[in-house]
Amino acid sequence: MDTIKTYIEENKQRFLDELFGLIRIPSISSISEHKPDMMKTAEYWKETLLKAGADKAEIMPTTGNSVVYGEKIIDPKLPTVLVYGHYDVMPVDPIDLWKSKPFEPEIRDGKIYARGADDDKGQSFMHAKAFELMVKTNTLPCNVKFMIEGEEEIGSPSLTKWCAENKDMLKADVILVSDTSMIGKDVPSITTGLRGLAYVEVEVTGPSHDLHSGLFGGAVANPANVLAKLIASLHDENNRITIPGFYDDVLEVSAEERADMARAPFNLDKYKTSLDIDDIKGEQGYTTMERTGIRPTLDVNGIWGGYIGEGAKTVLPSKAYAKISMRLVPNQDHEKIAQLFKKHFESIAPKSVKVKVTPLHGGQGYVAPTNTPAYIAASKAVEDVYGIKPIPFRSGGSIPIISTFEQVLGIKSILLGFGLESDAIHSPNESFPLEQFFTGISVIPRFYKHFAELSK
Amino acid sequence: MDTIKTYIEENKQRFLDELFGLIRIPSISSISEHKPDMMKTAEYWKETLLKAGADKAEIMPTTGNSVVYGEKIIDPKLPTVLVYGHYDVMPVDPIDLWKSKPFEPEIRDGKIYARGADDDKGQSFMHAKAFELMVKTNTLPCNVKFMIEGEEEIGSPSLTKWCAENKDMLKADVILVSDTSMIGKDVPSITTGLRGLAYVEVEVTGPSHDLHSGLFGGAVANPANVLAKLIASLHDENNRITIPGFYDDVLEVSAEERADMARAPFNLDKYKTSLDIDDIKGEQGYTTMERTGIRPTLDVNGIWGGYIGEGAKTVLPSKAYAKISMRLVPNQDHEKIAQLFKKHFESIAPKSVKVKVTPLHGGQGYVAPTNTPAYIAASKAVEDVYGIKPIPFRSGGSIPIISTFEQVLGIKSILLGFGLESDAIHSPNESFPLEQFFTGISVIPRFYKHFAELSK
Repeated sequence: MDTIKTYIEENKQRFLDELFGLIRIPSISSISEHKPDMMKTAEYWKETLLKAGADKAEIMPTTGNSVVYGEKIIDPKLPTVLVYGHYDVMPVDPIDLWKSKPFEPEIRDGKIYARGADDDKGQSFMHAKAFELMVKTNTLPCNVKFMIEGEEEIGSPSLTKWCAENKDMLKADVILVSDTSMIGKDVPSITTGLRGLAYVEVEVTGPSHDLHSGLFGGAVANPANVLAKLIASLHDENNRITIPGFYDDVLEVSAEERADMARAPFNLDKYKTSLDIDDIKGEQGYTTMERTGIRPTLDVNGIWGGYIGEGAKTVLPSKAYAKISMRLVPNQDHEKIAQLFKKHFESIAPKSVKVKVTPLHGGQGYVAPTNTPAYIAASKAVEDVYGIKPIPFRSGGSIPIISTFEQVLGIKSILLGFGLESDAIHSPNESFPLEQFFTGISVIPRFYKHFAELSK
Repeated sequence: MDTIKTYIEENKQRFLDELFGLIRIPSISSISEHKPDMMKTAEYWKETLLKAGADKAEIMPTTGNSVVYGEKIIDPKLPTVLVYGHYDVMPVDPIDLWKSKPFEPEIRDGKIYARGADDDKGQSFMHAKAFELMVKTNTLPCNVKFMIEGEEEIGSPSLTKWCAENKDMLKADVILVSDTSMIGKDVPSITTGLRGLAYVEVEVTGPSHDLHSGLFGGAVANPANVLAKLIASLHDENNRITIPGFYDDVLEVSAEERADMARAPFNLDKYKTSLDIDDIKGEQGYTTMERTGIRPTLDVNGIWGGYIGEGAKTVLPSKAYAKISMRLVPNQDHEKIAQLFKKHFESIAPKSVKVKVTPLHGGQGYVAPTNTPAYIAASKAVEDVYGIKPIPFRSGGSIPIISTFEQVLGIKSILLGFGLESDAIHSPNESFPLEQFFTGISVIPRFYKHFAELSK
């Protein structure tokens, strides 16, 4: 496969320049003022696909941000790979913690630093360049379709409907996705499970207006104190979630599967050091890998209320808020869980405050089988490049749309991610190692080759 | 006393115009960018005192914001009244809840709406105008000194030292202060007790950087969840504060005194309606008036951490913060309490996070006796105008400097406040009824008259 190596070598700088152009458009889907940037990013993708060799590429409207769709059909009898990615990114705050501008990519120590460097501009762009490579070197062995959406970071609210409406166009044998991480730089792995997500916002209202904490403190319920009590009560002393019915649909993983998972390398000391923490914390009776892989969790993603400026203000706030998300395991339904949360949270609020729970978004979990031609092809492709067979593993993250693809399109996905934990996705100073980027471009054409062969 | 009535009638509009000029300067002491406004406000006060008839007025530097000092000594043998007030105000956020601009006073329904309308520009300005009235009508019966500071809302950090350095200059028989509220519009009252204050900021740090809540949630301690647990644990099921030693120095108020306090009018239904709450909440075994008057309390004044913008972000934050203040009763030492808090809070934090507690500011509580010439003069002055003897009562608020005056200058204060609970001080839409403003100007000269007579 020297063709692959040579083509990458010869086009290295151009690949990066093109990726940087994509990254420079601040396509933050959760902030409405970035609406014009979404369209610019979609245009950029459309051009990228056409230049790479797509027969056609278009920006297709949805009820929300548009989807970029492109395809190259070389022979209807050959298998078809549908590449999924997203062109939207997370917000960048806290902005003051960034060492370089989030939308001006910078290479330091062999890594690209920028919002979206990994998630998912860097990873999805590997597919555009691998596709170009196969087209230009006449080695494309399958039909290819691209579906690049702009709402993944806000839960893909419009994609389900769009997929249902375009089911025929999207017909494929496998969906190929790079939006996940490997266990470690030298530990290639393929994600075979994703957690679901139920994300809610809660609002606690005490008095109708902010009060002087001296004149009213101690006599009137303080919504910030009440919110703290409510949140604190959501976990028991064993760090289990206290919402009635929360664990009802959780499938317990067998002792055998747990033993299998335990073979993945994990160094607790290194883990603690990399996060600068003195101790870990999680549900009793489970290992760290299990806590993120096979168990549901509940986290405060944001909390605010009262005076949060410089200095001191003696206010008894009228309102306090929190954004709370629950990661779910396969078989837990995100809508049911959001409703259980709402019912429970409202029921435990004292009469002295009013509580409002608003579900923001959600998605189901996912499990991929490891005995399919697609999984085997992915495993072989990784082994070709790394010389090691990759470990199948369950990630704690969520790509809500993956389970929807299965339900709506009837197609299973392969989660061939090249991210690393140290990439700090969703955080300040997100990065993506150049080596991972180019390795990805090198693995992908091999996947197509094995997949075409195994599908014969 | 028709002189008083006539002078006020004839100068009503000018008094308001001058007060509005004072209010228009945004002298927020807790926000450093307002530094230049502090000096402008001090200048305004200096001019006000000189025009009113002060022999001298000057802006005196301190280690922080300057103090405006002015005096009129008519006869060293006559008693001297030292007027204390403050020219700084609270921040204005949340700004979007204001119905008119906070620093552009507007009269609606007989009330002045603006930041500082009551606290303390409106109330302190009554003294400037009452002083002018007595000078211009040749009815001033005492020597007068003014001490108007610019750091009350941040705990008067520089005033103690300044007072100690100017002890001779500040010699007086009583300190007269209008920075408190009456029980109700038709329930004149004089504040005889103030709570102390210990204000701290806490910082909880989990991982060294924000993490993806899917990849790490459930395995790494979330500082926002931990902060909620820590705050929740600060009150027990009876709403008593759980910090060891917190209540050690609290003087229990006798059954007799409590019975006395219970005679003050209080309508729970009206109280709940005015705040739009369905229930009150506070320490078990005490009434609402007792909870704010004679009991110490703990309130979250602000809480923040993680993503607090629009939409959803699945972040496991690195840090979470809270501003927490404790209102103290006389005999509790604010420095000791801040240390008890710090020690306790740090001790209950789990090993999975790091906790930092920073005391921001504080002050001691205060109790004024009701058998002094000054108190009796104030009581008579109020009765002259209202036709009812005022009720002595203990307020839940804090003016930390009042107890310091007693310690450093050896002078007791009279807290002759004309604010109302509905003035929403420290909140959006702070207001001050015109009637309270002019009533105050009418009561104050009567205080001077009675005080001069009773001091003979």
